[in-house]
Amino acid sequence: MMRAEREHQQRGGTMQIGVLGTGMVGRAIAVRLAELGHQVTIGTRDPQATLARTESSPQGVGPISEWLAANPAVALRPFAAAVEAADVVVNATSGAAAQGVLTAAGAGNLVGKVLLDVSNPLDFSKGLPPSLLVANTDSLAEQIQRAYPETRVVKALNIVNANVMTRPAELAGGDHTMLVEGNDEAAKQVVRDLLAEFGWRDIIDLGDITAARGMEMYLPLWLRLMGALGTVSFSIKVVR
Amino acid sequence: MMRAEREHQQRGGTMQIGVLGTGMVGRAIAVRLAELGHQVTIGTRDPQATLARTESSPQGVGPISEWLAANPAVALRPFAAAVEAADVVVNATSGAAAQGVLTAAGAGNLVGKVLLDVSNPLDFSKGLPPSLLVANTDSLAEQIQRAYPETRVVKALNIVNANVMTRPAELAGGDHTMLVEGNDEAAKQVVRDLLAEFGWRDIIDLGDITAARGMEMYLPLWLRLMGALGTVSFSIKVVR
Repeated sequence: MMRAEREHQQRGGTMQIGVLGTGMVGRAIAVRLAELGHQVTIGTRDPQATLARTESSPQGVGPISEWLAANPAVALRPFAAAVEAADVVVNATSGAAAQGVLTAAGAGNLVGKVLLDVSNPLDFSKGLPPSLLVANTDSLAEQIQRAYPETRVVKALNIVNANVMTRPAELAGGDHTMLVEGNDEAAKQVVRDLLAEFGWRDIIDLGDITAARGMEMYLPLWLRLMGALGTVSFSIKVVR
Repeated sequence: MMRAEREHQQRGGTMQIGVLGTGMVGRAIAVRLAELGHQVTIGTRDPQATLARTESSPQGVGPISEWLAANPAVALRPFAAAVEAADVVVNATSGAAAQGVLTAAGAGNLVGKVLLDVSNPLDFSKGLPPSLLVANTDSLAEQIQRAYPETRVVKALNIVNANVMTRPAELAGGDHTMLVEGNDEAAKQVVRDLLAEFGWRDIIDLGDITAARGMEMYLPLWLRLMGALGTVSFSIKVVR
């Protein structure tokens, strides 16, 4: 009952959100959540080391020190501290790093938390285009759910680019579809409410977390669409 | 030059088309092609045995003898005969059966042919939902292309139900997207023209046949969407 009541209060209200991942996706989600009035902390292994970096990533993402200076509402703290006080944790790591980051965040800090997993288990080790580290009979989201059975994992957003994730209305007036899945209905409702705050109007619930196989296995198609269209600014509308 | 000229004449004209597969998908494609004026032959291992069946399939597909009586423009012949004279061959088998059927059709009969592969490599042997027989670093369409290097394999249509495949305009006025890929540009154009005859207006070329990985790996997502929506009558629109 307490949990349900708390979630009811959370809906439409301000939440504490810990975002794991300092890349393009983590930053886009963090700034959007802060803009919507939530208290956002980005988690990183070693804040001092992260802040000391001055080079851009190979993908052209600039130093986070500059980004934090431009987005003062977002805090930067160690993984565990970012997760500890959070109502919702967002896994915005590269899929390959997810389990290590969650270990560093601490299993105890994740108990009972809503974990929104937006990552993709992409394997770049064999060249481009990447294949998946896990597929077909399992998924990264299921692996995370198994590793943290008391955490309430919800998969969403991994099927679009960071800008489309967080500002869907800027693409075709928002006339496209987001998909969610997870084993915990109340956790899915928390995520659906956040997605609605982002601007998603058409959200389809695919059921339990095993549906993450389908959402993660969509990535190879997304990558080919990106190549064919010459843009990352696209999405799918489920027409029915 | 001869091939290119022939294909130019074929565009918009009548073609001989061999459809491999007597199931729901093969029948839907055959009747639609016949309706559009093409000469269509469905291939089967043993026409007499196929015609002798009186029971419906577990999926509720009735005996083909009745179906052929209702669709007299479509012929039924052995695999090899259906393929031999064809301009275009459609692989509408269950994915698991595809290689065996193509072997029976005869490699020599497939040389130079456009092979439209609409099948999905679904593995029902481990229960429901099915997983894929091949995924991630390979695909059924690539396996077929490797087995028949002189055949011009084009993947398309496998991402929607048989009715949506062949009558896209009946869903949301046709405002959704079909994807194609293949190594042979002229073969892709032949398929695109057929798709346009079916009613597809938005067709995206994903490039070479390796993109079939993405199109086949979309199936687990399609299956979950079917479960969530309670219908097979849906499609995706690539919004950009």
